[in-house]
Amino acid sequence: MRSHYCGQLNKSLEGQEVTLCGWVNKRRDLGGLIFIDLRDREGIVQAVIDPDEKAIFEPANKLRNEFCIKLTGIVRARPGSQANKDMATGEIELYVKDLEILNASAPVPLDFNQDNSEEQRLKYRYLDLRRPVMNERLQFRSKVTSAVRRYMDSHGFLDIETPILTKATPEGARDYLVPSRTHKGQFFALPQSPQLFKQLLMVAGFDRYYQIVKCFRDEDLRADRQPEFTQIDIETTFMSGKEVMGMTEGMVKSVFKELLDVDLGEFPSMTYLEAMTRFGSDKPDLRNPLELTDVADLLKDVDFKVFSGPANDEKGRVAVIKVPTGASLSRKQIDDYAAYAGKYGAKGLAWIKVNQADNGLEGLQSPILKFLTEDVAKAIVERTGAQDGDILLFGSDTYNVVTDSLGALRIKLGEDFNLVADKWAPLWVVDFPMFEELEGGALTPLHHPFTAPSNMTPEELAANPATALSDAYDMVLNGCELGGGSVRIHKQDMQAQVFKTLGISDEEAEEKFGFLLEALQYGAPPHAGLAFGLDRMLMLMVGAESIRDVMAFPKTSTAACPLTSAPGFANPAALADLGIDVVKKAD
Amino acid sequence: MRSHYCGQLNKSLEGQEVTLCGWVNKRRDLGGLIFIDLRDREGIVQAVIDPDEKAIFEPANKLRNEFCIKLTGIVRARPGSQANKDMATGEIELYVKDLEILNASAPVPLDFNQDNSEEQRLKYRYLDLRRPVMNERLQFRSKVTSAVRRYMDSHGFLDIETPILTKATPEGARDYLVPSRTHKGQFFALPQSPQLFKQLLMVAGFDRYYQIVKCFRDEDLRADRQPEFTQIDIETTFMSGKEVMGMTEGMVKSVFKELLDVDLGEFPSMTYLEAMTRFGSDKPDLRNPLELTDVADLLKDVDFKVFSGPANDEKGRVAVIKVPTGASLSRKQIDDYAAYAGKYGAKGLAWIKVNQADNGLEGLQSPILKFLTEDVAKAIVERTGAQDGDILLFGSDTYNVVTDSLGALRIKLGEDFNLVADKWAPLWVVDFPMFEELEGGALTPLHHPFTAPSNMTPEELAANPATALSDAYDMVLNGCELGGGSVRIHKQDMQAQVFKTLGISDEEAEEKFGFLLEALQYGAPPHAGLAFGLDRMLMLMVGAESIRDVMAFPKTSTAACPLTSAPGFANPAALADLGIDVVKKAD
Repeated sequence: MRSHYCGQLNKSLEGQEVTLCGWVNKRRDLGGLIFIDLRDREGIVQAVIDPDEKAIFEPANKLRNEFCIKLTGIVRARPGSQANKDMATGEIELYVKDLEILNASAPVPLDFNQDNSEEQRLKYRYLDLRRPVMNERLQFRSKVTSAVRRYMDSHGFLDIETPILTKATPEGARDYLVPSRTHKGQFFALPQSPQLFKQLLMVAGFDRYYQIVKCFRDEDLRADRQPEFTQIDIETTFMSGKEVMGMTEGMVKSVFKELLDVDLGEFPSMTYLEAMTRFGSDKPDLRNPLELTDVADLLKDVDFKVFSGPANDEKGRVAVIKVPTGASLSRKQIDDYAAYAGKYGAKGLAWIKVNQADNGLEGLQSPILKFLTEDVAKAIVERTGAQDGDILLFGSDTYNVVTDSLGALRIKLGEDFNLVADKWAPLWVVDFPMFEELEGGALTPLHHPFTAPSNMTPEELAANPATALSDAYDMVLNGCELGGGSVRIHKQDMQAQVFKTLGISDEEAEEKFGFLLEALQYGAPPHAGLAFGLDRMLMLMVGAESIRDVMAFPKTSTAACPLTSAPGFANPAALADLGIDVVKKAD
Repeated sequence: MRSHYCGQLNKSLEGQEVTLCGWVNKRRDLGGLIFIDLRDREGIVQAVIDPDEKAIFEPANKLRNEFCIKLTGIVRARPGSQANKDMATGEIELYVKDLEILNASAPVPLDFNQDNSEEQRLKYRYLDLRRPVMNERLQFRSKVTSAVRRYMDSHGFLDIETPILTKATPEGARDYLVPSRTHKGQFFALPQSPQLFKQLLMVAGFDRYYQIVKCFRDEDLRADRQPEFTQIDIETTFMSGKEVMGMTEGMVKSVFKELLDVDLGEFPSMTYLEAMTRFGSDKPDLRNPLELTDVADLLKDVDFKVFSGPANDEKGRVAVIKVPTGASLSRKQIDDYAAYAGKYGAKGLAWIKVNQADNGLEGLQSPILKFLTEDVAKAIVERTGAQDGDILLFGSDTYNVVTDSLGALRIKLGEDFNLVADKWAPLWVVDFPMFEELEGGALTPLHHPFTAPSNMTPEELAANPATALSDAYDMVLNGCELGGGSVRIHKQDMQAQVFKTLGISDEEAEEKFGFLLEALQYGAPPHAGLAFGLDRMLMLMVGAESIRDVMAFPKTSTAACPLTSAPGFANPAALADLGIDVVKKAD
């Protein structure tokens, strides 16, 4: 029906007749003329309707915002003074010869020029998505997935679909369940990831697999969580972890280069231990220059239990963040930071303002100076490299509390002091512990129970689970985990040992993962993989606030869809067919 | 870990050292040497282990089928007499210098050389998929989706994901339901297709959408049905039905050309009426030359109620299939065909064998000759073009019974008489009726209720729904429906009229489709689309018997997965969380 997209018109078409279809973005009446900004997915162009064009002026008068229309006319240059440099098509306009109203529009319930509530935006998503910013984001998403696919194709990866109706998966979050009609009383689960299927595809010999695939988690939602989200899922055979990292780093680099013209450079690699030590996070934002400095060794003997206790405790940690120019903070501001650290378990926030860095205790200001000796004060200033006007903020507690609270504080201080550089800061975090210790001493996998330990026999793992490192790797960008993966266990005895270490009984292992254990018996190859969170990657790339803004039809924070009113009540006959019943609640 | 895939080795690598990883496909011991056929996804190569290689001969002796191993060695030409022309790598072999057993294999429970039960194949799917035929099919699938995506990309289509957790859709099959935890007592439905979402994407202005997407139907399964299946889903704005047909025909042609080197040529187009009249099917297999010939007009006055009744009834049909050389059929064989036609409602199968085509009644043989006059007999022979040795098989009943039963018989006769040409026979079927009449007179949409009628106002549709034609089109290949689509209704008044014609009350329309009706108010553009069944297309392309053979992890005919034992029983706490209960059945 059209000859061009609106956004395609430019001076090279001057004098030509073109036909456009699109929506009335704006109408202005000026000097007897009607000006229409016509919008389609590629852009906006100005059309002018002259009263001399008698056949169309009357219908043109009916046009309102968001009418869907078809215009035929002549492309003409705008007089120099009227050219609009802020508009891609601003040098030209369309002199309209023919107009057809394809569909009228009622006044739209969203205001395109101001913020609308999330609920309204989702209820009228088809209008919200007409806003150029949203339209561009979803076009961008399509370009990214296309670029990812081209990269994977060119590296010999096969796109293989795995089931959506499957068995409960072991990722640990709550599954969405689907009642089976043919097996009444039984349920499918929607996959939290295709983890086991992709491993079985490696056992089957497909060598290199990828899939851009929906995954599901029935969790309470946060800004970057949705009930269904999309993963770039990758698995390879006969490749080491390093090779998988190289391959997937190449993918991310090529996508950034192609879509944003950004050269991410070589990704640095950092151990989990270093990340936690220096940044208090397993996904440090390297754009933020603040670091944690450990000072326990300096404070073992001070007469201040808050410091000396954790400093002498094997499971304690004492560390400090130096904030340049932070000496200007008021008491109130410091108290606010203390409260913030408190959310992460910190019981207080000791501080020292540095007035004259070379002047020992004399040059410092703090309620805790009385507990410090001249030597200790000097040593702290020296190790942190504090300058005049800086503040030192202390964490002193268990390792976890100090690491978490200072890690969180570091991020907040970076923002508040405007220290976060405007750049892309990717890195790999490697050498994760195999297990985390839960309260009570039980072990839980830091990644998932199919992750292989680094260079260990099952016997060595059994002997020292707490210190075992895994062959896992996370890709981090600007403080967000873009993706994570690992070398997988491919031998049955190791897999069985990991289950045992996790306290999973033989019966439970057999019930949940028997098919995997069985598959490992038949020449399962060494394999390794990785999965990226596509939504989060896109959110970062386009600078959106929420993954909802890079999805066409997201759910609300209560996992509902205001557009279609899903979920809804089911037909009682359908429930009877499924052999299930809704439990009536007392209130 | 490897330098090459097994299937990549050839004479150009002679003398080079290579490293391969793969599985022992076969082991033979011959003349003191051990021969290993090593298999990976790209093919099989012969490796030879010489007892002179002392360090590896001992481990080589342990090798059994399906061991996963790594071999390093020198590529060498096989002596001319030993070259194997049936094998892609048959000119060379690998002289092994180093061997590593990556994982042993227990004896596999599938016999790769003979048929295994469907249950066994699905339980050990990771082994079944090692069979080269299955491995190649899934590789082929990946290549097809890649080709589809490249075509769609190059034509400006955006890949946009639609929700899996959504509202019950109106396709008519049973939905899979997913209980909501945050909205207890309510349910999501898994989509039978993204129909309404893709229409809303057009309302949102994305112009050209595609998605290769999972769809779900909780139906009793047949060979070409699965609970979850994959659709190539397409929707466009401002394009006519003809343009959509051209675009998607181009896609299918380019995929066939690229993957099978088959030129499908220009697709012929046929009306629904012609397809039903000539072939008794809305998806005729044009490789089968048999056709139905209508003869009611010749039989109105015969003294044989079986013919004259339907011949004089407006809703009746009398038609004949001429089967060349069919006069050789025995009485028993004809009875069998009659029984077959009976499954489709036919109450009998009148027949005439043609011994001498130019000899009027004299030249014919049939129990019903006594009812025919010389003129009628001649006219039937003439119209059907029957030759000596042919048989004529009659259907005479209501239009539907004759069309269905002769349509089915045509397919069976085509196969039995080996008449189906070995070629690709695509076509478009167009000009479908908008509605079908159910028993009792209610109307149901032949496609779905969003299909636009051809050239009609809502008032005209209201006046004559039974004769209204839709702007729908089905792509048929070799008697299978590859895909179907239509121009959609984009005006609210027309959509409301279609709901009314279908007997959907205002309340029900509002409840189920209120959001669509509302969306059509805001300048909804003219739009049209189509959806292909990817699995079925692949099944045809690779010549598989079932769509299960082109899926990695299909379900059984009772919608279960023998591999993972899904579905399974749910944790009672999880059900309590969801506010649902399993109804205990008496037995």
